[in-house]
Amino acid sequence: MNLYRIVYASTLSESFSSQDIEHILASSRRNNKKQDVSGMLLFSHRYFLQCLEGSRDNINQTYQRILSDERHCRVTIVSYENVTQREFCAWSMGYVPESHLTRELLFKFSASATFDPYTLSNVSALALLKSLHGTVI
Amino acid sequence: MNLYRIVYASTLSESFSSQDIEHILASSRRNNKKQDVSGMLLFSHRYFLQCLEGSRDNINQTYQRILSDERHCRVTIVSYENVTQREFCAWSMGYVPESHLTRELLFKFSASATFDPYTLSNVSALALLKSLHGTVI
Amino acid sequence: MNLYRIVYASTLSESFSSQDIEHILASSRRNNKKQDVSGMLLFSHRYFLQCLEGSRDNINQTYQRILSDERHCRVTIVSYENVTQREFCAWSMGYVPESHLTRELLFKFSASATFDPYTLSNVSALALLKSLHGTVI
Amino acid sequence: MNLYRIVYASTLSESFSSQDIEHILASSRRNNKKQDVSGMLLFSHRYFLQCLEGSRDNINQTYQRILSDERHCRVTIVSYENVTQREFCAWSMGYVPESHLTRELLFKFSASATFDPYTLSNVSALALLKSLHGTVI
Amino acid sequence: MNLYRIVYASTLSESFSSQDIEHILASSRRNNKKQDVSGMLLFSHRYFLQCLEGSRDNINQTYQRILSDERHCRVTIVSYENVTQREFCAWSMGYVPESHLTRELLFKFSASATFDPYTLSNVSALALLKSLHGTVI
Amino acid sequence: MNLYRIVYASTLSESFSSQDIEHILASSRRNNKKQDVSGMLLFSHRYFLQCLEGSRDNINQTYQRILSDERHCRVTIVSYENVTQREFCAWSMGYVPESHLTRELLFKFSASATFDPYTLSNVSALALLKSLHGTVI
Amino acid sequence: MNLYRIVYASTLSESFSSQDIEHILASSRRNNKKQDVSGMLLFSHRYFLQCLEGSRDNINQTYQRILSDERHCRVTIVSYENVTQREFCAWSMGYVPESHLTRELLFKFSASATFDPYTLSNVSALALLKSLHGTVI
Amino acid sequence: MNLYRIVYASTLSESFSSQDIEHILASSRRNNKKQDVSGMLLFSHRYFLQCLEGSRDNINQTYQRILSDERHCRVTIVSYENVTQREFCAWSMGYVPESHLTRELLFKFSASATFDPYTLSNVSALALLKSLHGTVI
Amino acid sequence: MNLYRIVYASTLSESFSSQDIEHILASSRRNNKKQDVSGMLLFSHRYFLQCLEGSRDNINQTYQRILSDERHCRVTIVSYENVTQREFCAWSMGYVPESHLTRELLFKFSASATFDPYTLSNVSALALLKSLHGTVI
Amino acid sequence: MNLYRIVYASTLSESFSSQDIEHILASSRRNNKKQDVSGMLLFSHRYFLQCLEGSRDNINQTYQRILSDERHCRVTIVSYENVTQREFCAWSMGYVPESHLTRELLFKFSASATFDPYTLSNVSALALLKSLHGTVI
Ligand SMILES: Cc1cc2nc3c(=O)[nH]c(=O)nc-3n(C[C@H](O)[C@H](O)[C@H](O)COP(=O)(O)O)c2cc1C
Ligand SMILES: Cc1cc2nc3c(=O)[nH]c(=O)nc-3n(C[C@H](O)[C@H](O)[C@H](O)COP(=O)(O)O)c2cc1C
Ligand SMILES: Cc1cc2nc3c(=O)[nH]c(=O)nc-3n(C[C@H](O)[C@H](O)[C@H](O)COP(=O)(O)O)c2cc1C
Ligand SMILES: Cc1cc2nc3c(=O)[nH]c(=O)nc-3n(C[C@H](O)[C@H](O)[C@H](O)COP(=O)(O)O)c2cc1C
Ligand SMILES: Cc1cc2nc3c(=O)[nH]c(=O)nc-3n(C[C@H](O)[C@H](O)[C@H](O)COP(=O)(O)O)c2cc1C
Ligand SMILES: Cc1cc2nc3c(=O)[nH]c(=O)nc-3n(C[C@H](O)[C@H](O)[C@H](O)COP(=O)(O)O)c2cc1C
Ligand SMILES: Cc1cc2nc3c(=O)[nH]c(=O)nc-3n(C[C@H](O)[C@H](O)[C@H](O)COP(=O)(O)O)c2cc1C
Ligand SMILES: Cc1cc2nc3c(=O)[nH]c(=O)nc-3n(C[C@H](O)[C@H](O)[C@H](O)COP(=O)(O)O)c2cc1C
Ligand SMILES: Cc1cc2nc3c(=O)[nH]c(=O)nc-3n(C[C@H](O)[C@H](O)[C@H](O)COP(=O)(O)O)c2cc1C
Ligand SMILES: Cc1cc2nc3c(=O)[nH]c(=O)nc-3n(C[C@H](O)[C@H](O)[C@H](O)COP(=O)(O)O)c2cc1C
Repeated sequence: MNLYRIVYASTLSESFSSQDIEHILASSRRNNKKQDVSGMLLFSHRYFLQCLEGSRDNINQTYQRILSDERHCRVTIVSYENVTQREFCAWSMGYVPESHLTRELLFKFSASATFDPYTLSNVSALALLKSLHGTVI
Repeated sequence: MNLYRIVYASTLSESFSSQDIEHILASSRRNNKKQDVSGMLLFSHRYFLQCLEGSRDNINQTYQRILSDERHCRVTIVSYENVTQREFCAWSMGYVPESHLTRELLFKFSASATFDPYTLSNVSALALLKSLHGTVI
Repeated sequence: MNLYRIVYASTLSESFSSQDIEHILASSRRNNKKQDVSGMLLFSHRYFLQCLEGSRDNINQTYQRILSDERHCRVTIVSYENVTQREFCAWSMGYVPESHLTRELLFKFSASATFDPYTLSNVSALALLKSLHGTVI
Repeated sequence: MNLYRIVYASTLSESFSSQDIEHILASSRRNNKKQDVSGMLLFSHRYFLQCLEGSRDNINQTYQRILSDERHCRVTIVSYENVTQREFCAWSMGYVPESHLTRELLFKFSASATFDPYTLSNVSALALLKSLHGTVI
Repeated sequence: MNLYRIVYASTLSESFSSQDIEHILASSRRNNKKQDVSGMLLFSHRYFLQCLEGSRDNINQTYQRILSDERHCRVTIVSYENVTQREFCAWSMGYVPESHLTRELLFKFSASATFDPYTLSNVSALALLKSLHGTVI
Repeated sequence: MNLYRIVYASTLSESFSSQDIEHILASSRRNNKKQDVSGMLLFSHRYFLQCLEGSRDNINQTYQRILSDERHCRVTIVSYENVTQREFCAWSMGYVPESHLTRELLFKFSASATFDPYTLSNVSALALLKSLHGTVI
Repeated sequence: MNLYRIVYASTLSESFSSQDIEHILASSRRNNKKQDVSGMLLFSHRYFLQCLEGSRDNINQTYQRILSDERHCRVTIVSYENVTQREFCAWSMGYVPESHLTRELLFKFSASATFDPYTLSNVSALALLKSLHGTVI
Repeated sequence: MNLYRIVYASTLSESFSSQDIEHILASSRRNNKKQDVSGMLLFSHRYFLQCLEGSRDNINQTYQRILSDERHCRVTIVSYENVTQREFCAWSMGYVPESHLTRELLFKFSASATFDPYTLSNVSALALLKSLHGTVI
Repeated sequence: MNLYRIVYASTLSESFSSQDIEHILASSRRNNKKQDVSGMLLFSHRYFLQCLEGSRDNINQTYQRILSDERHCRVTIVSYENVTQREFCAWSMGYVPESHLTRELLFKFSASATFDPYTLSNVSALALLKSLHGTVI
Repeated sequence: MNLYRIVYASTLSESFSSQDIEHILASSRRNNKKQDVSGMLLFSHRYFLQCLEGSRDNINQTYQRILSDERHCRVTIVSYENVTQREFCAWSMGYVPESHLTRELLFKFSASATFDPYTLSNVSALALLKSLHGTVI
């Protein structure tokens, strides 16, 4: 009754620099582990698509911190739902390097071969994230 | 395809003072009207329950501003969904004064006669909001 | 998310005496009001059928007290479910006097015209309770 | 959980004589009242269509007696199901005199304007019985 | 179990003459009454749309006779199904004169305002026939 | 089987002048009547939303002519489906003048109070068109 | 019709001591075998999650004894339902030692990697219990 | 349209003696073969559970003979339904010797490890019968 | 949109002689190939069960010829439906010789081990035809 | 939310010459790749059946160009829908040479063994296209 999943899309802000991704992953993993949050992060072409799973409180707190992070903007919820099991329980924050987001893969679930997570439906976004299980690092 | 509804619960923070509600309503109405956002706000017993309807971008931007507002805390999404029509199109921000949130009404949709929006299911929260249509000011 | 309904059947024990029903109702109403529990009690032919609505914790605590009450025995759950609104919100403990449990009414929902709540299906038990809304005292 | 409905069709046997219908109704009503069985009997054109509602045990015992009654033969179950409420609770054995089984009525639910209950589907048989509520004597 | 409905479309053959419609209706009504067949016939613009309801055997025998009738051709089944009650039980063969088949009516259920029953879906054909209940003669 | 409905959105092109709307309606009504096409046209804020109902061939031919009409551009299908009855059978081309497209109405079915038919879901677009039945001229 | 499953959560009380688990299992197995009750018990982190399957009477009697056992408290029903077959028929009381309740497993079905059965939905609780089939001792 | 399945439970009567089972099977197989009836018989602990498949007439005639057989009593229908294929077409009357009705098997589908077919739901009874396919003699 | 399947049953007429089956198959295959009709024919015990797949016009024309063929009678439609793919596309008219219509097979889908296609439900008839795929000659 | 699929049928116009197919494929692949459109084209017997997948804007723009191409005519939409993943993501425009469109294949999904895409239902058309995955060049 208390397990939720949120998926959101966002856009790199100008202030984003190339090492930021490592910092984000490091603090995500440190915080999420403490809060029993699992998830996955895609990063490509100036956009993020992220999924977070955990208690309603933890998911919302984490999302609040993320929303106020100035390294990205136009943070937009793609889906939010109560679930009965996690899809990404193996990762406190799985990361799929841009190189694994092949044209073929993106193309299958979206209208474009370049990554634009704002155009994904809630079903397509989750399907894309699941199809990447094998390539998480 | 682009009409969304978010419902969230939150808690007054210590910094909240009694005139704040007027200020919140005033700026909500001013901003929401500009962004074609409709909605409804319940306030009682130190808690808020709010519903916002509009484009995905506007709903998310408004929610981001609300999330960083220090007059409340523990802001928690109750439901978020793509809808085909608005339920609260008559109000840029309808307000139900605490005096209308009678024990009977709250009791019908929740486990307690005092208002605790965190315990409402997504279905009960929307049902409660709809049952108040007639008492909005 | 936190509103539950339990329906159970039980049998008067030998120790039950005729004033007990008043005591039961008095303490039920006093306790239930405090715990935001609503419900309805049928009593006829040596049997009880009772419905309790409220938070999961309160319903379970009340049920535990009831289970250990020696005035009845063979206490048996008929149904237990998470609901989105109360059916009996008007009563902390509505009571339907035996005289209102007419043969016609009982007969409609059960295999017998004398009251035997152990034989009711979960659907029939709730339907019987609802059909008595008008005769609660 | 223990309320069942059986519908069956049968054919007058040669030994049937015109007063038998009164005897059947008299003993049906006497027995069924004792066993909390309700139901309805149609009689026309050498055929019976009967519905019995009650506890599983009583329905089956009654059906056993009926099956061995030599006043009819080719006794054939049309439907048998667990139900949550009675359709014919007003009658221990309602009887629809042949004169009320008009051509129009029979015709609506069956392939023939003369009564042949063996050809009725389970849905049509129950629909026919319900449509006669108003004409029971 | 034994009640069927067939709907078919056909086309006037060259040999058709204007009095034929009266003969068809007369023999339809005489035969159908005998066989407990009910139905409805539309005639307009060189086409027929007919519905027949009754036992599977009678429906098929009647259809066989109709199929070999040289007054029409290109006889084509639109739908055939087992039903639990008749829609046209009031008529052994209801007839809707061409003048009642208004442009508005035909237009609502088909792609053309002139009557072409071959283009109707099974759902539209039955809906058209039902919408004519009031104008049958 | 042969009744289709297409709904599309489009944008005025630069070449559009104010009398064009009368010409469009005149030729629409003349052509559609001939081809048994029904429909409705909304025009507001530089956008069109149009619905066409009729045979698959006629709908497609009409749509082809409309697609190559230089008075509008970015012509985009919102929905296309096989239907069993028309919704707009009363009009060869119903027209809802801009003045009837009130803020309230548009707002109910879309994310914005100004008319942007590209953002409507297929369900919302049809619901908006139906809600205008009473105001067609 | 008479096979039920109850799942409940509870909390160790202060009076609980480390040998108690053996005593509970011993008396559970002895009693349940006699009453044809099957089930499974998880114990970790001061909490129990238990499932009991059997006749409605036996399940309720066992639950009554368990409810009044002072070795645990806050006993709370997670789900109660009529089922058509047992999930845990191999065990009169299967026990999953704490060491098998790995972080990974708990994490998959709940919002936390430490065991808190009160937060599990009815679906997640049963899924967790089933996923442990292989590790029961 | 004419293939039915009946499942019933019954109890040995006092007059039953140990060779009777052979006689019952012999006459069942002889009669059922003639009437194209298939089925399965379980016998254990003073109870029978039997399934019969065949034409509606044959099933009902066989059931009538069985009902009046004095070797058993309390004959009670568990389910009766129209089916599209047989489950037990390999046997005119398959028999599962008591020794194959293991505790484990019975336990899985019922509230008790000793065989009491009156307590089985319609779904559990058929599931039990199917699970015995491999052990029929 | 234009692919239909008809299944019908019929009875040999007196005039039928043993070589007729070869003639029927020969002309069926010749005609059906020309009209893109596929199908399957069972023949046993004086009865036929045939399935025809193809365009609505061709199916109906073929059925009309078949209906007026004096080598069989009591031609009765079992089912008629619009389908999205053929089941018997490998045969212009597959034939299952009587010797392959084993007792076991017929028995599984019907109330009798001798072939009586009039008693088959629409679902059973198609299931029987499909189960013969491997034995067509 | 922004991934659509359109399937249409069309007919070669007189002006079509045999090299045109190469030109069409070349420009389709060049344009579609640029616009992230995927799809498949069947060509046989004077007809085309084509499927296009991509963003709503790109699909509609491409369809507009195709509609005004004089090398074919009677361009008719078979289906248009919002999808969550592509079926033909491997091809910017897959082509199935006429020689692969065998009689057997066409026959399975349509009423004729020669290719007539206008008669295919939306379900059959997509099923035919998918069944050709292996033969695309
Ligand atoms: C795209 C993106 C994803 C992020 N994901 C998470 C996350 O899953 N968990 C988290 O705690 N912080 C996440 N952050 C970082 C937070 O915004 C914030 O910086 C961090 O929680 C602060 O915690 P710290 O001070 O412990 O680093 C993310 C930031 C970005 C830009
Ligand atoms: C409970 C609550 C509800 C609010 N609702 C809205 C709202 O619906 N729209 C909005 O623009 N601001 C809302 N606000 C105020 C925002 O947090 C923020 O103060 C405001 O958007 C700033 O805009 P302003 O500077 O124009 O006043 C809400 C604040 C609170 C505490
Ligand atoms: C049939 C029956 C129904 C009861 N219903 C309730 C009830 O709804 N609420 C309640 O608090 N006690 C109920 N009781 C009484 C409890 O068993 C117990 O006596 C009571 O909760 C003790 O509280 P007190 O000491 O405040 O009276 C019921 C008892 C019986 C026999
Ligand atoms: C068509 C028909 C319907 C009957 N219906 C009932 C019935 O509903 N209840 C009943 O007890 N007996 C019914 N009977 C009579 C029984 O067969 C049997 O005669 C009767 O139960 C014997 O009870 P008695 O000795 O008290 O009359 C029916 C008989 C027939 C022929
Ligand atoms: C369009 C049409 C509809 C017909 N409908 C019926 C009908 O419903 N019942 C019927 O018996 N004959 C119907 N007929 C007439 C039969 O084809 C046939 O002429 C008639 O059944 C012969 O019976 P008779 O010799 O008693 O007239 C219809 C004929 C046509 C052309
Ligand atoms: C927004 C819009 C809607 C139109 N609707 C229709 C229509 O419903 N039917 C139609 O025939 N033409 C319609 N037209 C006009 C066609 O594009 C085209 O001009 C017309 O069919 C040519 O026919 P005409 O030469 O008979 O006028 C529409 C044009 C526009 C811009
Ligand atoms: C968490 C927990 C689970 C239990 N499970 C069972 C059980 O499944 N069956 C049972 O008979 N007793 C169970 N008990 C023990 C009962 O509370 C009670 O002590 C026991 O039934 C008394 O029977 P005894 O006197 O035969 O030991 C459980 C107790 C606890 C604390
Ligand atoms: C439990 C039980 C099951 C029976 N099953 C059948 C059966 O399946 N078919 C059958 O003809 N008789 C069955 N009988 C026997 C009938 O009651 C009856 O004795 C028999 O049909 C009489 O036929 P006979 O005279 O040919 O032996 C069964 C009897 C009992 C007690
Ligand atoms: C049981 C049965 C099945 C038949 N099946 C077909 C068939 O599938 N196709 C067909 O053209 N004729 C079939 N016929 C034969 C037709 O009734 C008719 O004789 C034949 O179509 C005449 O065509 P011909 O003159 O080319 O032989 C069948 C006849 C019978 C008795
Ligand atoms: C049957 C058919 C299918 C076509 N498919 C496409 C297509 O998928 N994409 C496309 O851009 N053009 C397609 N075309 C060609 C267009 O009609 C048009 O000629 C082309 O888009 C013009 O672009 P170009 O000038 O770059 O060649 C197709 C044409 C035909 C006749």
